[in-house]
Amino acid sequence: MATKKIVTWTKKDLLGLEYLTKEEIELILDDARSFKEVLTRPLRKVPTLRGKTVVNLFYEPSTRTRTSFELAAKRLSADVINIVKESSSIQKGETLIDTGRNLEALKTDIIVVRHNCSGAAMMLSRSVSISVVNAGDGWHEHPTQALLDIFTLKEKLGAINGINVSIIGDIAHSRVARSNIWGLTKLGANVTVCAPEGLIPAGIEELGVKITNSVDEAIKRADAINVLRMQFERDRAEAFPSTIEYFKTFGITEERLKNAKKGIIVMHPGPINRGVEMSAEVADGANSVILEQVTNGIAVRMAVLYLVAHAKREEAPTDAV
Amino acid sequence: MATKKIVTWTKKDLLGLEYLTKEEIELILDDARSFKEVLTRPLRKVPTLRGKTVVNLFYEPSTRTRTSFELAAKRLSADVINIVKESSSIQKGETLIDTGRNLEALKTDIIVVRHNCSGAAMMLSRSVSISVVNAGDGWHEHPTQALLDIFTLKEKLGAINGINVSIIGDIAHSRVARSNIWGLTKLGANVTVCAPEGLIPAGIEELGVKITNSVDEAIKRADAINVLRMQFERDRAEAFPSTIEYFKTFGITEERLKNAKKGIIVMHPGPINRGVEMSAEVADGANSVILEQVTNGIAVRMAVLYLVAHAKREEAPTDAV
Amino acid sequence: MATKKIVTWTKKDLLGLEYLTKEEIELILDDARSFKEVLTRPLRKVPTLRGKTVVNLFYEPSTRTRTSFELAAKRLSADVINIVKESSSIQKGETLIDTGRNLEALKTDIIVVRHNCSGAAMMLSRSVSISVVNAGDGWHEHPTQALLDIFTLKEKLGAINGINVSIIGDIAHSRVARSNIWGLTKLGANVTVCAPEGLIPAGIEELGVKITNSVDEAIKRADAINVLRMQFERDRAEAFPSTIEYFKTFGITEERLKNAKKGIIVMHPGPINRGVEMSAEVADGANSVILEQVTNGIAVRMAVLYLVAHAKREEAPTDAV
Repeated sequence: MATKKIVTWTKKDLLGLEYLTKEEIELILDDARSFKEVLTRPLRKVPTLRGKTVVNLFYEPSTRTRTSFELAAKRLSADVINIVKESSSIQKGETLIDTGRNLEALKTDIIVVRHNCSGAAMMLSRSVSISVVNAGDGWHEHPTQALLDIFTLKEKLGAINGINVSIIGDIAHSRVARSNIWGLTKLGANVTVCAPEGLIPAGIEELGVKITNSVDEAIKRADAINVLRMQFERDRAEAFPSTIEYFKTFGITEERLKNAKKGIIVMHPGPINRGVEMSAEVADGANSVILEQVTNGIAVRMAVLYLVAHAKREEAPTDAV
Repeated sequence: MATKKIVTWTKKDLLGLEYLTKEEIELILDDARSFKEVLTRPLRKVPTLRGKTVVNLFYEPSTRTRTSFELAAKRLSADVINIVKESSSIQKGETLIDTGRNLEALKTDIIVVRHNCSGAAMMLSRSVSISVVNAGDGWHEHPTQALLDIFTLKEKLGAINGINVSIIGDIAHSRVARSNIWGLTKLGANVTVCAPEGLIPAGIEELGVKITNSVDEAIKRADAINVLRMQFERDRAEAFPSTIEYFKTFGITEERLKNAKKGIIVMHPGPINRGVEMSAEVADGANSVILEQVTNGIAVRMAVLYLVAHAKREEAPTDAV
Repeated sequence: MATKKIVTWTKKDLLGLEYLTKEEIELILDDARSFKEVLTRPLRKVPTLRGKTVVNLFYEPSTRTRTSFELAAKRLSADVINIVKESSSIQKGETLIDTGRNLEALKTDIIVVRHNCSGAAMMLSRSVSISVVNAGDGWHEHPTQALLDIFTLKEKLGAINGINVSIIGDIAHSRVARSNIWGLTKLGANVTVCAPEGLIPAGIEELGVKITNSVDEAIKRADAINVLRMQFERDRAEAFPSTIEYFKTFGITEERLKNAKKGIIVMHPGPINRGVEMSAEVADGANSVILEQVTNGIAVRMAVLYLVAHAKREEAPTDAV
């Protein structure tokens, strides 16, 4: 790409892949590649964010995402404050906006926010002048998860343009699916979503994706499949009678992968329910890149924290449309 | 103040403003001013407490105070250990004193303690030779909150001596009120407390404050008002029929402030119940310094941690009377 | 010991004292002595593990052990991630092995694991190539607790070979007892276990210990007694009618110690139930080394973290038999 456009990062926040250009997504991926190299060193630490404070503000528990962001921040030498909102001032009725303004007044630099309401990250971002990184908001977006998925695909396949990716599972309630669709289509991938009828959200085709209810169809021409977690613990039991039934109809097995392209890439955002979304053989098999995704998550989050902290502020304080 | 007395900090602990001299309070405020400057730098960190360990020992949840102390300690380059006592050894019956002695044996340096019992910080301080900072003990004192309130007043008004401060709200159950009264009267301010009849503690006038049940009276000649949080979640419903009733009688509104001095300062320790203690317009209005209080809290706590860690130990191990 | 064998640490993990040689245990104790010196410095920190990440992965709450490991890691300049598994992905059904593989993929270096199942640390160790330190697994082992007990004994008595140590309390359900027995017998101590009949596990004599049900007998010739915590909160009420009854029959009192050797050492892993396992006078008396054990715990854990992080990897990835 000799004619590659030089892109400068200007956004104080990362709220979702819907709000980024193709070039901005590629900038994150390029920086993540540099940071991944840091992870291979004996001293896995750079002084990039020394003196800065990253706050993990989690209204939903998530050890995995919180740990990944905490590690990313510490590898950049930032200080990290963890706030889990449950037994604390959420009971005392403090609003998200007040919490954000307080964190700003405390002179912190970046708020990484996980919230059960769609749009929470954007609302927070509009209330403060410090950076906000969306670590998952309701059923809306989970941009760093999609970025690490796309980073992994690019690393494995060389490019995103023209590849076929199928996202399989509970599309309706998945912020991971939504962020992947935005990111992948902007970079030129062909995206198919595959779910039981009740778990396909109305109007999803307007995002430029194909739809199927057949997992075999979804697998057939795919270069990669991204298999979502079924969250049976939430109130979706009605959508499917049982995990056994789900596995029989939608579970990814070695048998099913026989009809796939050789070298098909199998992804999963974790944590895996072996025997529900996929068999243990597939999860731990040669096509699986699930643990590489975890490693890439650190690199991608280092890149995101770095970019928002060093944004050239030439524009309005929020990057939302 | 050309004749200002040179004061050396000699106390290993900060237990309450009751136990400090005017000069010691001023020393904290002076040091806080220097540390506030650090907060404006791009690299908001000094090596002052490098190699020291600060333990946040919280028997009551408080994200705000804990976060503020954690940030203050990290900006001084201390290591921080957070201990929230609920699901841990408090169940196993370990006493506060045993916990303190263990933290001393673990070679930590400063215990920041929040406890639901009045006197807990002092009891802990007498049991260990390391420093203890009271982050709120029952209805007794919350000295760093008062110090940040006073710091904010001094920054805004130039001096404390002779100013009129009204503290409005549930005086009876407020450690914030008690610490403010001690600190402000020592520095020469005129303090008025204003509360519904049942929330004025007996004998409070002996601390040198005026009492009123009329919020208009409290506002009239005040240079500043400090509006306390109504904690309706605790067992005080009997003192007032409802939050709506409370707001009507005691809530601070723009209407009420019309009779106040121009430039009256509005403070609140947070988190605010908008529409209960004050209207949203007042909370977010031109007279409010509520978010500046939050920033100043970091500076004041940096000063306190610095001073107790570097106390000249020329006296008995506890500063209690 | 002029002819002392030069020992190199080759194990990536510390799973239990059962799996260590006498020489390896002595190597840990020697290194701990050096690290203890660090704790006496004003700047209690060395750069030994800078850039490394230690994960505290606790499936059982334990403020004491977690804090001790966290402090040990921070004194070595490691980054520390705390994961308490309760409200997090354990609910989402993630297995210990998947959690371990994720932490490995996140490029962390050492997992300190506390788990309610015996064998959990070893299972984890076999699943990952990074280091695993057992911080207590079920009723199996708690090696760092035994190491700090033995370190304390060696410091007080000069040597372990030939000394008489009695372990008193609920032997059947004690990982502390088990680890102490392995360690002490390997170093040549004579170990007696003393418990009510129902709390002596079958076959314990095969580990080379004497058994008694009489606490006076256990005390009589002992150079040291290690008094275990009675965990009445667990389901062991049936073993003993009440704490009062237990104290009368097994509690260590000054009266009982009159028949002991002068200078007998009294140890307890904490937290103490005063008036159950021992009287307050004994716990806080001249023979008690309980708080020194706490200090030594930091030194021993620094040594363990240092050794597993710098293991010469000349052998199979797990040190288990």
